[in-house]
Amino acid sequence: MQKNKLAIIGMGNVGSAVLVQAVAQQLAAEIVCIDINEQKAHGEALDMTHATPAGCSPDVKIYSGGFEECKDASIIICAGGPSIMPDEKHERLILAKRNIKVIGDIMKEVTSYTRDAAFIMITNPLDVTTYLAVTRFDYAPGKLFGTGTTLETLRFKRIIANHYNVNAKDVQGFMLGEHGNSAFPAWSTVSIGGVRLNELDKYYDYNEPFDKEKIANTVVKTAYDVLESKGWTNTGIAMGACYLAKAVLLNTRCVTPVSIPLTGEYGLNDVALSLPSIIGENGVEKRLAIQFPDSELEALHKSAESIKSILRANSLI
Amino acid sequence: MQKNKLAIIGMGNVGSAVLVQAVAQQLAAEIVCIDINEQKAHGEALDMTHATPAGCSPDVKIYSGGFEECKDASIIICAGGPSIMPDEKHERLILAKRNIKVIGDIMKEVTSYTRDAAFIMITNPLDVTTYLAVTRFDYAPGKLFGTGTTLETLRFKRIIANHYNVNAKDVQGFMLGEHGNSAFPAWSTVSIGGVRLNELDKYYDYNEPFDKEKIANTVVKTAYDVLESKGWTNTGIAMGACYLAKAVLLNTRCVTPVSIPLTGEYGLNDVALSLPSIIGENGVEKRLAIQFPDSELEALHKSAESIKSILRANSLI
Amino acid sequence: MQKNKLAIIGMGNVGSAVLVQAVAQQLAAEIVCIDINEQKAHGEALDMTHATPAGCSPDVKIYSGGFEECKDASIIICAGGPSIMPDEKHERLILAKRNIKVIGDIMKEVTSYTRDAAFIMITNPLDVTTYLAVTRFDYAPGKLFGTGTTLETLRFKRIIANHYNVNAKDVQGFMLGEHGNSAFPAWSTVSIGGVRLNELDKYYDYNEPFDKEKIANTVVKTAYDVLESKGWTNTGIAMGACYLAKAVLLNTRCVTPVSIPLTGEYGLNDVALSLPSIIGENGVEKRLAIQFPDSELEALHKSAESIKSILRANSLI
Amino acid sequence: MQKNKLAIIGMGNVGSAVLVQAVAQQLAAEIVCIDINEQKAHGEALDMTHATPAGCSPDVKIYSGGFEECKDASIIICAGGPSIMPDEKHERLILAKRNIKVIGDIMKEVTSYTRDAAFIMITNPLDVTTYLAVTRFDYAPGKLFGTGTTLETLRFKRIIANHYNVNAKDVQGFMLGEHGNSAFPAWSTVSIGGVRLNELDKYYDYNEPFDKEKIANTVVKTAYDVLESKGWTNTGIAMGACYLAKAVLLNTRCVTPVSIPLTGEYGLNDVALSLPSIIGENGVEKRLAIQFPDSELEALHKSAESIKSILRANSLI
Repeated sequence: MQKNKLAIIGMGNVGSAVLVQAVAQQLAAEIVCIDINEQKAHGEALDMTHATPAGCSPDVKIYSGGFEECKDASIIICAGGPSIMPDEKHERLILAKRNIKVIGDIMKEVTSYTRDAAFIMITNPLDVTTYLAVTRFDYAPGKLFGTGTTLETLRFKRIIANHYNVNAKDVQGFMLGEHGNSAFPAWSTVSIGGVRLNELDKYYDYNEPFDKEKIANTVVKTAYDVLESKGWTNTGIAMGACYLAKAVLLNTRCVTPVSIPLTGEYGLNDVALSLPSIIGENGVEKRLAIQFPDSELEALHKSAESIKSILRANSLI
Repeated sequence: MQKNKLAIIGMGNVGSAVLVQAVAQQLAAEIVCIDINEQKAHGEALDMTHATPAGCSPDVKIYSGGFEECKDASIIICAGGPSIMPDEKHERLILAKRNIKVIGDIMKEVTSYTRDAAFIMITNPLDVTTYLAVTRFDYAPGKLFGTGTTLETLRFKRIIANHYNVNAKDVQGFMLGEHGNSAFPAWSTVSIGGVRLNELDKYYDYNEPFDKEKIANTVVKTAYDVLESKGWTNTGIAMGACYLAKAVLLNTRCVTPVSIPLTGEYGLNDVALSLPSIIGENGVEKRLAIQFPDSELEALHKSAESIKSILRANSLI
Repeated sequence: MQKNKLAIIGMGNVGSAVLVQAVAQQLAAEIVCIDINEQKAHGEALDMTHATPAGCSPDVKIYSGGFEECKDASIIICAGGPSIMPDEKHERLILAKRNIKVIGDIMKEVTSYTRDAAFIMITNPLDVTTYLAVTRFDYAPGKLFGTGTTLETLRFKRIIANHYNVNAKDVQGFMLGEHGNSAFPAWSTVSIGGVRLNELDKYYDYNEPFDKEKIANTVVKTAYDVLESKGWTNTGIAMGACYLAKAVLLNTRCVTPVSIPLTGEYGLNDVALSLPSIIGENGVEKRLAIQFPDSELEALHKSAESIKSILRANSLI
Repeated sequence: MQKNKLAIIGMGNVGSAVLVQAVAQQLAAEIVCIDINEQKAHGEALDMTHATPAGCSPDVKIYSGGFEECKDASIIICAGGPSIMPDEKHERLILAKRNIKVIGDIMKEVTSYTRDAAFIMITNPLDVTTYLAVTRFDYAPGKLFGTGTTLETLRFKRIIANHYNVNAKDVQGFMLGEHGNSAFPAWSTVSIGGVRLNELDKYYDYNEPFDKEKIANTVVKTAYDVLESKGWTNTGIAMGACYLAKAVLLNTRCVTPVSIPLTGEYGLNDVALSLPSIIGENGVEKRLAIQFPDSELEALHKSAESIKSILRANSLI
């Protein structure tokens, strides 16, 4: 009998939110919680497993364990490493240095047990950790991928949906590039109900004019708004990661932006960033290097350069 | 305490499939099954209510009753009247005559108890019954609407998704016009992952060339394929109707095509047909008379004329 | 990557209801519909797969195919063979003869491809077909099991729940023995909220006295009430079968009555019938031959004898 | 159209976990987050609302606001007030004093807007805050109730289920009395699959003898294990609270222990504690003062006295 086993690495605010969503969405028959702080992992697994007799969540097996539990995992979601703190939002280099070390340690452990599991990276700076994990630990690119601008894209949809008072699931369009400050809206991909960006005002209601720059800024700033308001961000990214995990586990072949190292697309190499991708049982089944108008192409290159500067500063390229 | 009550009228193959989906999707705390054949309604309600102790479907109250049960319904889904038979697919006039009588009787009953409930029409010929119900029984247009090309649109998405091997939920685009033979694909609304129709071949995999005419035909023919293969169609339309019911009950404001009488859009009057619409707590919150290229505009008018011919033949216009 | 594949054999009223529930409950990433009437299987798969773009059912792969599709199935649910007709309810021997042939043909096909898949039998007379499949086709008992009195138990819970106006999921207790006329309530297993049968009246509200015999009769008669009212029974049994399938696929180890051949329990051999069982990844993980009071023991033996008479009449024992 | 509105008061670890579960379980079309720390409520609502475009959670309306938002709430879940800290587990009086003030302030606000909404109390010490809210703020007892030993009961089921390797949902039995240290297992209510406590060893597998005292201790200690391991407890209690909320919103009439003031049951007055109750649209529809064996009756009175000592120390009785 085939049963999916999910390993969650890093049981902080994000990892524990992934656990809750994974149970709610019935992603796996077995979930193992892994954290260097074994007590924390034990506590989260215990709290969750005691919740399962209520309501209709399935009676999945939830427990904590060491990295050896990755051996037979179907899928691994990695949220290990400290998050950015509310007061250090511009200190990306500090975060990078810290988490390159953490992800290095984690990947060494994981790859000593498996390179077969699909691997979804959440740890920030996302594109840097993804690049590191794929290029330094021989994890098949695509099989390992980062959540990337999945979260920015969710926010983009929500913000546009609120602007025009429609369902966010009916808003199409992607934020691409870096997961972080240089993420950019691919305006050319935006539509609602088949209506393209420049005609939205004609058909949908709104209270104020649609200001592209303002909306793009709001998407990126929302991360800091959440971070500063509640002290961390976890619900959105956990839902995003589980959406991707489901795509792998059920081979849904959804089209959504995730981060993997580029191999010459748009003339870009030596960098991981998010482009629209088909996600299926093998992870990234296909990467779509769609044609961008000049303004978006420029934003893409700028975003790539932003990531590269961190990669260089850490001698990863 | 606010609790939604769903009334399903007509417990044949379609109505009973609506019942199953409504329970699975937790649409309401209370569901009443209504059919002229009271035994049939009793049997369906009984079979379903005995299933609820299993699994995680909520323990909703399910029973059969008369039209007086519509009095306090939040929402009514009407699948009453005989379906088209596998051997009479071209006899639309016969079906129309038969179901105009049936829907007239049903609306007389329903409106003697309520005009407050949202009302989703499924009975075919859909645009004719919708036109009849709104114009002859003073049910607020929008509050009463027909599933219309919801089903054609689902099929359209599935067929295109299969063609390019992607998730059907990532395919955007609508079939519009008549629910039936003259439904047309609004190709100008089609995209997958932000990529428009004429560029799909560049980014997505396919086994054979994309033949627009063939795909449009397949969508319409699928109704007959299902009808002739299994003897009726119910699963798809039931899922479509419940999608619309959820949009009303949770005020999701999704954008999807449904049928209501036109009031001058595209110069058209005296006809109900499907255009993209925002569905929310009041039913059709907004109808989007989007700009079509000439070929689609022509198809729309042709479709309108097709429906009008039935309306005229039955002295409804 | 591990993905569950469900094969449904027999796409009549029951099999198609299993399909709908399996999709709604996300039981598998892939579902194949098998029927001797290939058109019917095609139609049901087509109608269902075109419904999946709506709402939140996952985008599973649904198609029709031949028995060779069982080869890599994780689980098989068999609803093949004609059902009993409303007008022949007492002609159990006719049904037995008919379906012994059908199940023999099906098992021959299935076992030429696999004996590894869990196998849930629904076809009636259930205990006869289960006995046949296990003993004549070398399918591991427990790995193959019949839904048995799962449906009677659901009905039992619903009827008692309605009597005392409580949630049916809080009613404990089993119907056991034959799936059919001689099924008996194991009153000694009944409780609601920790309150045992003989004290229920003290704590719960009721409109009329609790008449054990009447309730037992109502459970068994309900099958005929549904059958005669709607022409067949499918919703309840489909939900029951999917509950069991989920128990296998997620290894939930639920405790519920299913049918497998007895091996000396209560001095009984050469018969399959339902006793409380733990269902997990291997099918029946453990059978509970619980101690019954004399009256229930008597009912059990009577029920066993009833099944044996059919087995004998068909030279299966 | 009827739409449920849920107000969550207190957006700390517990309240934010309630928010996530409420969205996952589709409890309401509209959720408002209320906290004295408006930024925190804003951040949690924002993080959650940006997650909804992913996966199949419904597109509910989520926002933060003030107590005036309770005015039209269908149901209120209150997790306001600081939680116990890992290092002060024996300082119940300190917690009580602190939260009596907090709940007093909250109830004054809430009751200035509504006494019509169902109200589920989570804030600890639970039985004290529940007693306070009902008796001092004229909220109808039953309409307002505390989660009580819901969480202990979930833990009790999980622990027994693990002991016998069965599904926790098939374990019947309640922890009753105080939500906290003096909670006691009502062993007389325990059964698995219709098998009572003293016979469980005969039918189910186990690795070590069933030690009642040890199990009872483990249930109570688990709260501290979770608290000390992860720093707080939230997942379990959030799931429990949402289970109760669903019971109210869908009128499921489930039987489960919750806390309301006693009115002479077992000779007890002037105290709130948990007894098995039927939960429906009006909150506690019926309280079951079931007959206990002497040992459990003694435990109940001891538990009542434990709560009363806190009530007295705070001049609430």
